[in-house]
Amino acid sequence: MKLAMVQSGGAPRLVRVDAAGQRFWPVESLAPNLPGEMTALIAALADGAVLPEPSGEGEALDQAMLLAPLPNPPRNIFCVGKNYHAHAREFAGSGYDSSSTSAADAIPKAPIIFTKPFTSVSGPWDDIPLVPGLDAEVDYEAELAVVIGRGGRAIPKAEAMAHVFGYTVVNDVTARDLQGKHKQWLLGKGIDGFCPMGPWIVTADELDPRAMRVSCTVNGEKRQDAVTADLIFDIPTLIETISLSMALLPGDVIATGTPEGVGIGFKPPRFLRDGDVVECAIEGIGRIRNRLRKVDVAALRGAA
Amino acid sequence: MKLAMVQSGGAPRLVRVDAAGQRFWPVESLAPNLPGEMTALIAALADGAVLPEPSGEGEALDQAMLLAPLPNPPRNIFCVGKNYHAHAREFAGSGYDSSSTSAADAIPKAPIIFTKPFTSVSGPWDDIPLVPGLDAEVDYEAELAVVIGRGGRAIPKAEAMAHVFGYTVVNDVTARDLQGKHKQWLLGKGIDGFCPMGPWIVTADELDPRAMRVSCTVNGEKRQDAVTADLIFDIPTLIETISLSMALLPGDVIATGTPEGVGIGFKPPRFLRDGDVVECAIEGIGRIRNRLRKVDVAALRGAA
Repeated sequence: MKLAMVQSGGAPRLVRVDAAGQRFWPVESLAPNLPGEMTALIAALADGAVLPEPSGEGEALDQAMLLAPLPNPPRNIFCVGKNYHAHAREFAGSGYDSSSTSAADAIPKAPIIFTKPFTSVSGPWDDIPLVPGLDAEVDYEAELAVVIGRGGRAIPKAEAMAHVFGYTVVNDVTARDLQGKHKQWLLGKGIDGFCPMGPWIVTADELDPRAMRVSCTVNGEKRQDAVTADLIFDIPTLIETISLSMALLPGDVIATGTPEGVGIGFKPPRFLRDGDVVECAIEGIGRIRNRLRKVDVAALRGAA
Repeated sequence: MKLAMVQSGGAPRLVRVDAAGQRFWPVESLAPNLPGEMTALIAALADGAVLPEPSGEGEALDQAMLLAPLPNPPRNIFCVGKNYHAHAREFAGSGYDSSSTSAADAIPKAPIIFTKPFTSVSGPWDDIPLVPGLDAEVDYEAELAVVIGRGGRAIPKAEAMAHVFGYTVVNDVTARDLQGKHKQWLLGKGIDGFCPMGPWIVTADELDPRAMRVSCTVNGEKRQDAVTADLIFDIPTLIETISLSMALLPGDVIATGTPEGVGIGFKPPRFLRDGDVVECAIEGIGRIRNRLRKVDVAALRGAA
């Protein structure tokens, strides 16, 4: 099952999308008794509620209608650093890695977890803003994101997959200079608009999380291409690790890390510039496509 | 003005407390038209709404009624690492500092910002849980926390203090082993119940943020004692820095960092143990007092 947020008519609407990604049915018409907000719907479904199969034609989905499927997770999105071997080596060798001080240290011995706030989340086709002071070393990171269904604390690995509601695609956009300068990664990663997400959430029953191909192109040129089987810390390990520190909640998002091929993996680094188009895709889920666009600070001040 | 959350009768209530901390008036009775939830009230007051002066006797405040004043900030709490000179040196010399690799690197050149989720926030008298796997190297960090009123993006230093609504006390409790092992600090710092907060929010007009004395005792023994004039990055600098990456929101909390004297500053380190009592105090605000208490994992699983 695919769940999405669409802009059709007035306010954003929570909808179920068909397998082909061409028709949709508002959840409020399928099940008026279920919540009309994504996090609350995920909690209800994880708790045993059932969303009826759609009947009738539904409405035509113009993909341009799609918004971020989970714009307001219960707390900052969990993100995993250096979680593919080849990427861990390219990052440690880039000069930007404040978490590693020697080649021996390149492959993490435990998951590296940081966060991006909900305010960084943007839609699958939204522009990625290039703001003066944050625009010099902007980089892409295509990632598989796990959406938690049933919450829980101290979840053992063997039970972890029962807590996964579904999957979506994110681009963990990063200002590499800020990531390095501030040591902890929030300010370089949590920038407003630096987490494009979508195009929808695909429920866990439809996908094998160990066999998904994650890829990224910049202006049509392939940059990243790997399978999730290569994750250093797999999804059950991530869930076990995070849930030992804190109870996971319905709607929590865990972005599982990016594969080799980011901009700082090149020598010299290939950062994103005004007008560049980044496309992140995962087989079985779909793709998101975002253009880099200059924004001036005065406009930001007015908008805030 | 002091604002607090109290447990009196049924549900938690948002209240105004008198200067002496002995009487309170529910906000809903003072101003039925203002929001009854703390973050929404802060947004309204920052936007120009006025909370009337209390009249009449109010109700007697038993301090035991106090809860965390801001249990549900809009996103993870911002925290600042290594923001007092003497503490930056003790931490860099402790062997636990993944952000620093040499003595030359001990004093940060830019603010180190990480987060703690709302699920870590607990009340001013709540126990700090010692959970198996997280309990070996638990440490205290008394801190001044800034509560944001009016939001904004790219706020210049000179305008920053106009965005401060008030102040409260937090203990940035930390599992030092996890902080080191996971490189990024979320899992060692964001543990459920690892952010005692309170006893109330004191509005900015009543305090000089450069002249507050921050102290901490463990079982009555003084461990930390410093003034906020010693901050490496002062409050305007923190607001300018964070708001360049992301718009600040009403109710955002910035914990400004802890002074010298944490447990890992001692050789050997003095970690917190079952039954220890930690008291964090800030002159002009008040004190919070929390006992360490063993919790078993089965109980956590049941509660989650």
